[in-house]
Amino acid sequence: MKIRGSDGPRLRRINLAATLRAVREGPPVGLTELAARAGLSRPTVEGLVEELLGQGWLSETPRESGRMGRPRRLFRFRAEAGHVLGIDVGASSVRAVVCDLDGEVTGRFSVRAEASSGRAERLAAMRSAVPGALDDARVPAGAVLAVCVGTTGVVTGAGTVKLSVSLPEWTGLDLAAEVGRDFDAPVLVENDCNLAALAERWAGVAQQVDDVVFVLSGMRTGCGMLIRGELHRGRRGAAGEIGALPLVGWHRAPSHLAAFPGLPPGTAPEETGGLVFAAARSGDPAARWAVEQFAHDLAEGIAALVLTVDPDLVVLGGGVSRSADVLMEPLRRHLDPLCLEPPALAISGLGDQAVVLGAVRHALDHVDARLYDVDAPLPAPRAPGA
Amino acid sequence: MKIRGSDGPRLRRINLAATLRAVREGPPVGLTELAARAGLSRPTVEGLVEELLGQGWLSETPRESGRMGRPRRLFRFRAEAGHVLGIDVGASSVRAVVCDLDGEVTGRFSVRAEASSGRAERLAAMRSAVPGALDDARVPAGAVLAVCVGTTGVVTGAGTVKLSVSLPEWTGLDLAAEVGRDFDAPVLVENDCNLAALAERWAGVAQQVDDVVFVLSGMRTGCGMLIRGELHRGRRGAAGEIGALPLVGWHRAPSHLAAFPGLPPGTAPEETGGLVFAAARSGDPAARWAVEQFAHDLAEGIAALVLTVDPDLVVLGGGVSRSADVLMEPLRRHLDPLCLEPPALAISGLGDQAVVLGAVRHALDHVDARLYDVDAPLPAPRAPGA
Repeated sequence: MKIRGSDGPRLRRINLAATLRAVREGPPVGLTELAARAGLSRPTVEGLVEELLGQGWLSETPRESGRMGRPRRLFRFRAEAGHVLGIDVGASSVRAVVCDLDGEVTGRFSVRAEASSGRAERLAAMRSAVPGALDDARVPAGAVLAVCVGTTGVVTGAGTVKLSVSLPEWTGLDLAAEVGRDFDAPVLVENDCNLAALAERWAGVAQQVDDVVFVLSGMRTGCGMLIRGELHRGRRGAAGEIGALPLVGWHRAPSHLAAFPGLPPGTAPEETGGLVFAAARSGDPAARWAVEQFAHDLAEGIAALVLTVDPDLVVLGGGVSRSADVLMEPLRRHLDPLCLEPPALAISGLGDQAVVLGAVRHALDHVDARLYDVDAPLPAPRAPGA
Repeated sequence: MKIRGSDGPRLRRINLAATLRAVREGPPVGLTELAARAGLSRPTVEGLVEELLGQGWLSETPRESGRMGRPRRLFRFRAEAGHVLGIDVGASSVRAVVCDLDGEVTGRFSVRAEASSGRAERLAAMRSAVPGALDDARVPAGAVLAVCVGTTGVVTGAGTVKLSVSLPEWTGLDLAAEVGRDFDAPVLVENDCNLAALAERWAGVAQQVDDVVFVLSGMRTGCGMLIRGELHRGRRGAAGEIGALPLVGWHRAPSHLAAFPGLPPGTAPEETGGLVFAAARSGDPAARWAVEQFAHDLAEGIAALVLTVDPDLVVLGGGVSRSADVLMEPLRRHLDPLCLEPPALAISGLGDQAVVLGAVRHALDHVDARLYDVDAPLPAPRAPGA
């Protein structure tokens, strides 16, 4: 980025971005402090603040008295000037969460789905979860500045599901177009494990680290990763697809749980893991053996990831995160000898909310990037006025 | 980075960096063009140029006439104001290369070593290669601004070889301290495959891409990687160590070549690969079988890397890069079915120079970072004067 003195409108856009950033650094702030934070003169900042007030990106909070007894104007970022929507389309449920531009959740709604649902039924579940969350947040669809949908499978940059093993009917779906129909806002589509990795770094157990491998485990196994704090998707969106390598055991892992003879007939796939781990917890030898085999196969794929990426932290999420007390001992026993050194391993702090919170975070990052992109005009708020 | 108007020396440092960058963008340049490139006023740039001339970072080239017939002053970056040294400590040789700050190679020297050498002999070979390259460049050790040493194994951030399988006597060596004794300059130590990846992106087959997996293959197998154009080392410097996972065949791969019955007795390890590939090229069935097995095992590890990282390009280097005509067909045949899509695969363009050129590039990046680091004083050239 070059700052050219001759380039007035561009310089103004740069200064608007600096002012917005400075306001968002903390609680309501006065002009003098704002000028210092933004590295600009007080008169310049005053003009920029007036413009941002007029657009509806800032509001003025009630005056307080300054140190000299004079009333002082204080300004804050209007987090309610727009909202983002995150959606997690899973095998057995669709979750939607709405939040404001500070990342405060203002609405949520979930709809059950059947693992055996067809494409149309799953899309219908999504179309019912979304208005539920918007209603809960008391926000119209027009106030949404960005949408992010998390889904299983390999996703193209344009938002089509290229391949989903766990939801075969989903393969080939242009999910960005399906969701885009209902919104006048950018729609991002992202692999669910990638979003869970983002969420753990935002609000879960990976807040202090930059290279994160998130492993989703349960009746399916998947992986998402952050390198230097950013999503690493790979050339074709297929980073983390180590489960496709038959040499490492991820493709077999869930079958050990499904084969536990103590399962009641007709147990739903999403309940299998919990039942096996519960039986293992109470000492059932067949269940313990199933968990042992499961841990063995899970460890092989995690070891391949660790030996390739050497991350700061592996986060284990999905169904198994509720059964860490049973799983961690055998997993460590199988995993550590496969690695050069025992890797740092943590259980997801967000459980079944990880994907939808990651979707919200990804949408927020998109909005922030537009606010701070000095090569494009400042976007308009979606809820103008103060 | 915040630019604060009140902070004069800091602003001057920022402007010095901007001026240096602008001069280095192209051929010798006049003040008017330089001011435009740097986004600064002509009088400001004139003062900065005088300072850089005085320090010896810039020099003035013979005047030419401007469009109006007036003589015009032209300035260039003094690439000879310092040099960097790259060293590749391999099993059977030590290579050293000296280059100027534009990356032009000005000297090189190689010394043979024995794979069976002890630590002291290998260090002695290094101490003989380094002055050879400096002499060849006619550059004193005091003119070196940064040194980078490439070595096999896992290297700590501080420059100690934590673990080397192929050079066991090297494990535990504080290589940064050993080399640092001879130089008044920072000494970087880096895994050799990481450096080869850097070199391929600088001057080899990976110039157009950002996510690169370099696979060294021959009588040992190793991996280095770039993510978003930068080295990815991992938390403990152990990224790319997929060969440590017995499930994928890298640990076995070289043994198929060594077991080829057509090898003359007493064949040195570094000659084995070439002989087997030559025999396979001329149709020897036992050699072809050895190559087939080798390709099978090499493919397993590459597939694990590809399915984890999904890179833009896999570069195959090391000894096998001279035998691509024999290896590529069986390698593709084993690799592609293991991956979701056939990965992009290229043969190293730099051969046995990849590591030492990567060392030079890494040292140059370090010098550039110091030149442009606005939070630290501008370093002094090591060959002052114009």
